[in-house]
Amino acid sequence: MKKTKLIVIGGNAAGMSAASKVRRANPDHEIIVFERTDYTSYSACGIPYFISGKVKEADDLIVRSPKVFKEKYNIDARINHEVLEIDTDNQKLKVRNLKDKSEFWETYDQLLIATGSRAFCPDVEGMGAKGIFGVTTLKSGIKVEQFILKEKPKQAVIIGGGYIGIEMAEALIIRGIKVTIINRSAQVMGTLDPDMGALVYEALKKIGVVIHLNEALESFTTENGQVIAVVTKKQTIKTDMVILGIGSQPNTALLKNTKIKLGTTGAIKVNKKMQTNITNVWAAGDCVETQHLISKKAVNIALGTVANKTGLVAGSNMVGQEITFPGVVGTAVCKICDYEVARTGLTEKELKQLHMDYITATVDSLSRAGYYPGSTKITVKLLADKKTGRLFGGQIVGQEGAAKRIDVLATALTAKLNLQQIIDLDLSYAPPFSLVWDPVQTAARKLISQMK
Amino acid sequence: MKKTKLIVIGGNAAGMSAASKVRRANPDHEIIVFERTDYTSYSACGIPYFISGKVKEADDLIVRSPKVFKEKYNIDARINHEVLEIDTDNQKLKVRNLKDKSEFWETYDQLLIATGSRAFCPDVEGMGAKGIFGVTTLKSGIKVEQFILKEKPKQAVIIGGGYIGIEMAEALIIRGIKVTIINRSAQVMGTLDPDMGALVYEALKKIGVVIHLNEALESFTTENGQVIAVVTKKQTIKTDMVILGIGSQPNTALLKNTKIKLGTTGAIKVNKKMQTNITNVWAAGDCVETQHLISKKAVNIALGTVANKTGLVAGSNMVGQEITFPGVVGTAVCKICDYEVARTGLTEKELKQLHMDYITATVDSLSRAGYYPGSTKITVKLLADKKTGRLFGGQIVGQEGAAKRIDVLATALTAKLNLQQIIDLDLSYAPPFSLVWDPVQTAARKLISQMK
Repeated sequence: MKKTKLIVIGGNAAGMSAASKVRRANPDHEIIVFERTDYTSYSACGIPYFISGKVKEADDLIVRSPKVFKEKYNIDARINHEVLEIDTDNQKLKVRNLKDKSEFWETYDQLLIATGSRAFCPDVEGMGAKGIFGVTTLKSGIKVEQFILKEKPKQAVIIGGGYIGIEMAEALIIRGIKVTIINRSAQVMGTLDPDMGALVYEALKKIGVVIHLNEALESFTTENGQVIAVVTKKQTIKTDMVILGIGSQPNTALLKNTKIKLGTTGAIKVNKKMQTNITNVWAAGDCVETQHLISKKAVNIALGTVANKTGLVAGSNMVGQEITFPGVVGTAVCKICDYEVARTGLTEKELKQLHMDYITATVDSLSRAGYYPGSTKITVKLLADKKTGRLFGGQIVGQEGAAKRIDVLATALTAKLNLQQIIDLDLSYAPPFSLVWDPVQTAARKLISQMK
Repeated sequence: MKKTKLIVIGGNAAGMSAASKVRRANPDHEIIVFERTDYTSYSACGIPYFISGKVKEADDLIVRSPKVFKEKYNIDARINHEVLEIDTDNQKLKVRNLKDKSEFWETYDQLLIATGSRAFCPDVEGMGAKGIFGVTTLKSGIKVEQFILKEKPKQAVIIGGGYIGIEMAEALIIRGIKVTIINRSAQVMGTLDPDMGALVYEALKKIGVVIHLNEALESFTTENGQVIAVVTKKQTIKTDMVILGIGSQPNTALLKNTKIKLGTTGAIKVNKKMQTNITNVWAAGDCVETQHLISKKAVNIALGTVANKTGLVAGSNMVGQEITFPGVVGTAVCKICDYEVARTGLTEKELKQLHMDYITATVDSLSRAGYYPGSTKITVKLLADKKTGRLFGGQIVGQEGAAKRIDVLATALTAKLNLQQIIDLDLSYAPPFSLVWDPVQTAARKLISQMK
């Protein structure tokens, strides 16, 4: 009997989660993974910490190498292989071996597309110059590290004050490099409301980052093919290197001439089983759309958590174990030296766009009992339905213990809890860990008082 | 017009939460609080940290003094006043001024009983000796501190290895006192399952605590009225002081000859509005029973979180704002030097007693990405309904970041989430804070595999 042949395009979080799940469920399937880069299964989220030096070796970020996949899982993960074409009618792929430049066709019974995302590269003068880096792949992270070691840059400009921009700012500051962020809008961390973004702005200033708000990149000035300055409408900022942190976009170019449908976000449209419009073609990870459980809109979230979950769901369904991925609530956290930033659900801006009537309140609370050493300020903002008090979102900025508190709100959002139910939650308390009323409950108490 | 007169018995968390709520809602009510001790509104949970020296002054544990209540809230909080009798037919109380020994009757329109709990004192020989301490009130904490300063004890025996015993063990070790715990049952921290209790046992041993399991207190040996040894069936342990950590019991002696009903736990029976069987008599805090949301049984939980919540609910209803307290899921956390211990929901023992068919799994995971500096082991145990996968309980033992992770499980329990829904939760991830699959989700993934 012919073995079922599963092909995965993309050997990182989503692809390898799916492949591993298929292998656990079925020892007999043939599983081939085509990965364009040199690496499988690594933590892209760890790249800033490799750059900062907190993580010593790039290899430390690799969860499993192709060798481990082969020997332990009997998964044939072929690095340096790029898929060039997908022919869903004939269930085959055109693949290029990037090392020897050979090309070949490979058939499949089941296909998983897990091509991930890439840093958005602005189409401006000087873009191709040396010293300009995106940091979405391990390879790009290694390039940054090599550049720093060789060129010993003294100053860097980061384009964009979102998660990647901020994490890279921390990393470069730790490396002793002067950092300037230029940010198109009036606030850093555009996934927060402006008032909470302002706290992040202050945290960045405290660690010495120079920030120019309301300034967009116009072009790069180069000299001998090397970037030497970033030009905005207002000024020219000299620099030795540039990090692109203006977001990512799903890798879907490969699907251009296929029958596989994209969704409204530009990412691949899948059902809750991670199945595309073509029955035996699945997709997972940064390249797909998922549903936002509060707005009910399609969203494209490029995060490791979603990649792993959707990969596991795709892999399960590919072997006939029917499970579904219900969607996301938009949880994200990041660290800026001693500061922690977290968000979940919808922001004021998003609620306004959706014409959802909301109320909001912000409180300053503490991470530990006030008398307990090391207690620090935690600011919590909550947003809720004006009529019912149902939670719509939350944002937290603080120091130790701030970020993971967002998980209670993420859980509450998923369970559709209202403010009174959050106040009633039996959350843990001991003086080293919290106040008697956890900061998220104090925020809920303040907000519910607006309903009466 | 005569002012409505509200009397509160007990000036700590529950009583003062209620009194403050009434005041916020109604500036005109007359509010009198009778408090037996010298203090109002203090953090009893903070006492071990005052003993350890982390908190410098006993006063630091006081949230609001009688003076503040008088001046800022117009609440007449009378310390050193003990209520001796309650006459619900005539709506009056007999009160003794403990300073001048005078006694008087005071009438009320609404009464709140918030008498709290006290350390359980075993009825054994030598019990009244000097050097034996309970630590449920600030006064008792101050006595311990004064004893340590004056007598400079070198060794202490703690009776009972529960929360208070363990927190006091940490405190005394920090003060340079050799600590022995004697524990009646085969495991410390009886609110955990034995396998998780064993991790706490190891943590205590690591900080140098000597623990004798399966040994019950028989008597105290005294000399000149001072405790000098603790006697068990197996041995006599010399000591300079003793801490009682064998649990607490609700203060309900005052209700003996009243019509106010107690529940099955021995604590005051109240409805979800915190109303006793007598219409205008309310009760809140350590002295009442609440409902356990999973077992549906009445429980008596002596924790600051529950005291504050039930106090707020009682106060709201006393001024006609109808809100209810749905109940608890049994969340509790504690710290032992670098270790954190957390639990919520039901244990194996409790599930067996309730004849609830359960499955359980335990995983060792990490607090941060494995490659991120400072990542430490977190052990998570989950219990769930064998048929439906609905969460029944969780226990966590680890270091940094272990304890507050229990809040996700407490929220999931309240929202009646099942294991698949926990796996699907959009929990936060960044390398300094978690793994891509949060440890609680890794445990849920392991446990759900037992259902298939």
